[in-house]
Amino acid sequence: MQDLAKLEDLGKPRVVIVGGGFAGLELAKTLHDAPVQVVLIDKQNYHAFQPLLYQVATAGLGAPDIVSPFRKILNKQKNFYFRMAEVQSVDAEAQMVHTSIGLIKYDYLVIATGATTNYFGDEQMQHNATAIKCLEDAIELRNTVLSNFEKALQTNDNEQINSLLDFVIVGGGPTGVEVAGALSELRKHVFPYDYKEIDFKQMDIHLVQSGPVLLKGMSEEASAKSLEYLKEYGVQVWLNVRVKSYDGYTVTLSNGQTLITRTLIWAAGVKGAPIAGLKPEALLKGNRYQVDAYSRVTGYENIFALGDIAAMQLPDYPEGHPMVAQPALQQGQHLGKNLPRLLAGQPLEPFDYNDRGAMATIGRNHAVADVKLPGGKEYRTQGFFAWLMWTYVHVVSLVSFRNRFAVFLNWTWSYFSYDKGLRSIIGKTKDPLRVKVDEHSNEPELVAPLKE
Amino acid sequence: MQDLAKLEDLGKPRVVIVGGGFAGLELAKTLHDAPVQVVLIDKQNYHAFQPLLYQVATAGLGAPDIVSPFRKILNKQKNFYFRMAEVQSVDAEAQMVHTSIGLIKYDYLVIATGATTNYFGDEQMQHNATAIKCLEDAIELRNTVLSNFEKALQTNDNEQINSLLDFVIVGGGPTGVEVAGALSELRKHVFPYDYKEIDFKQMDIHLVQSGPVLLKGMSEEASAKSLEYLKEYGVQVWLNVRVKSYDGYTVTLSNGQTLITRTLIWAAGVKGAPIAGLKPEALLKGNRYQVDAYSRVTGYENIFALGDIAAMQLPDYPEGHPMVAQPALQQGQHLGKNLPRLLAGQPLEPFDYNDRGAMATIGRNHAVADVKLPGGKEYRTQGFFAWLMWTYVHVVSLVSFRNRFAVFLNWTWSYFSYDKGLRSIIGKTKDPLRVKVDEHSNEPELVAPLKE
Repeated sequence: MQDLAKLEDLGKPRVVIVGGGFAGLELAKTLHDAPVQVVLIDKQNYHAFQPLLYQVATAGLGAPDIVSPFRKILNKQKNFYFRMAEVQSVDAEAQMVHTSIGLIKYDYLVIATGATTNYFGDEQMQHNATAIKCLEDAIELRNTVLSNFEKALQTNDNEQINSLLDFVIVGGGPTGVEVAGALSELRKHVFPYDYKEIDFKQMDIHLVQSGPVLLKGMSEEASAKSLEYLKEYGVQVWLNVRVKSYDGYTVTLSNGQTLITRTLIWAAGVKGAPIAGLKPEALLKGNRYQVDAYSRVTGYENIFALGDIAAMQLPDYPEGHPMVAQPALQQGQHLGKNLPRLLAGQPLEPFDYNDRGAMATIGRNHAVADVKLPGGKEYRTQGFFAWLMWTYVHVVSLVSFRNRFAVFLNWTWSYFSYDKGLRSIIGKTKDPLRVKVDEHSNEPELVAPLKE
Repeated sequence: MQDLAKLEDLGKPRVVIVGGGFAGLELAKTLHDAPVQVVLIDKQNYHAFQPLLYQVATAGLGAPDIVSPFRKILNKQKNFYFRMAEVQSVDAEAQMVHTSIGLIKYDYLVIATGATTNYFGDEQMQHNATAIKCLEDAIELRNTVLSNFEKALQTNDNEQINSLLDFVIVGGGPTGVEVAGALSELRKHVFPYDYKEIDFKQMDIHLVQSGPVLLKGMSEEASAKSLEYLKEYGVQVWLNVRVKSYDGYTVTLSNGQTLITRTLIWAAGVKGAPIAGLKPEALLKGNRYQVDAYSRVTGYENIFALGDIAAMQLPDYPEGHPMVAQPALQQGQHLGKNLPRLLAGQPLEPFDYNDRGAMATIGRNHAVADVKLPGGKEYRTQGFFAWLMWTYVHVVSLVSFRNRFAVFLNWTWSYFSYDKGLRSIIGKTKDPLRVKVDEHSNEPELVAPLKE
């Protein structure tokens, strides 16, 4: 045990933020002049720009292009402290968080732990599927996709080859749609030149959506166009179909059909990532903390929750805000302005969400956008202009200038070269690089003949 | 077992190249028009530019900046085939290589497996030290260095803090000198802003060199200046001192002194990485294959060796050429021209090494260069101009335009901002992120107080 003397010396109240996603980082920044110690805790030392994880997974961007170390982002902010640690639980009585590196006291606790992949209790699926929720996921998926093609060259067995070349994406939301589009671009513009020996007619991309439309929540036009674009790209879209099971090889669909793949990409849902130790009644379905209009967690005075992990049940949003970047950013900024008021004994402002609409990109020149204009009007567009808008918004939203510059250059390069250059297998891959055609034979097999 | 019919159909003799470093890649490229099948086998799917690994290890460059996928580099070359696999052994009788993905036949075998770190049989050292020989090493070292600073914030125990902040580099060759210089730049220009709570007077960088000079093999001026620069940078250089042992914490030196560090970087030697199955008499000391002036391995007609793994004992180079990029590149190109002659029944040309000299950089504006001019004269320079030369040579030597562009931008950026921006901890780290101050106490400790 170490003494807290020095700690007391600091005097100022301590705001501990758990999680450096959009909400946590925005809050930390907004508090730059506040008379507090800002302590950010994250299990990574970097902020990852989640909306572009799928591009890392599909070789369009490198991992360094979409991450930025917290210390670099905020190294000019005097009242900012970072600790790289995993938070295990909260002791609200003692006002402490238990972490992988020890105890950390707080005066105000802000939970911004975001969301995690929701497999709805299907452990077999969780074990066999691949998600794209964090950077490690994205890197592993990229490596797995690339390794599949290397493996496909090891055999002449067509079912084996198809199991490696075919991809099944579950979930017709933005992530599912964007991954399906990106994979079809790799199939059309990149892989045929890398793998001349493979017949890419054998490569199938399936997108399975339980509901009747893609991009549920966006406009009819957006849903219809995204479907049209994906079909244009040769993606097999299954609407009103659910995935019943996946054993790592065979996918069983609710319509009785089966698909064969070694790579099922699960983009079918997320749930909050709560911390142990808080009152269970504060947790709503979907593992989100119930918060009031000031982001305060029900039942606590000095504990707040922001972003995906928070459900602020306002009349317009009875289930809380959508689990995307905008509410997280706005709630972070809002609390950043409210906390100083709280400290100064001034009345707090309730949160008011400014919905700017939604966008999704399917591929080069093909995107859909529903833009909310000031005054509540909505501007809907699809195609090239929507794609330009999507591109611009994502470049400028990146955290550091370095990232904006790198992504802009990568995209410009890819646009004109039709190339996706980040195809090196670096880091973790799902399976070892070996396909045994005859599982029973122990004698070494000849590698499949080269084809001209 | 699969039939080889299709294989025979291909007709052309097959050249199997093991290893896609400088030598193997250059050979594959040079054979672009040769009437052969070029089959490159590598355990990675990318070529890594080894001279800049140390920059990945010190956050100056990102991994994607210095690697390029083989398929991307050569996807326009009709006679090129790549297989991602680990070669286990050679069966010279049957003209086959046993690999992790099966058997591969060859007509001509070229071993370009390069070199691996040489711990001279010290298993304890091998277990505790960190090397910088491959990309995975470099990434792990970067993550370890960054994690050390995160860990240092967890304790007030000064010995613990010093064990994390101090670095011991063993080996005064280019790698050792370049890493020491890069670490001292991080200490001066980057880390103090990231880790305001750390007193960087506590951070020591030790460079231990068994011989009397740094950069042995380069000119006296180069050795002297590199020493001068490193001292200027505050690196503690130990000459004529050997490391006797390292238990992961305490370094014992041959002069009886001890140093405390959790991070010992081993750059003290390399040895060839041979393949099982060849005649032992072909292997010289340092695990290099004895080859003739045509790069043919002693005792074999159709097996060749290039680069670090080959020792071509010419009068000027009784021990073989230096284990660096230039001989590898030149031998690869040379064999690429000789093989077609061999197939055409023409006389072979003996290899003639064109030594262009050597360079090493210590830090911004500080490098040393011994340039061999046509006619055998040598031009020696140190300082800014040498640094410009080093920078130019390394940028243009990178394999792909994308890499050249990325590295150029990163370096330009770093030069003017004094920043090294690749400080995200992505992938493997040596130790878990936890320093237990009191190893015996089981009760959670308070994280070290924040300091202003």
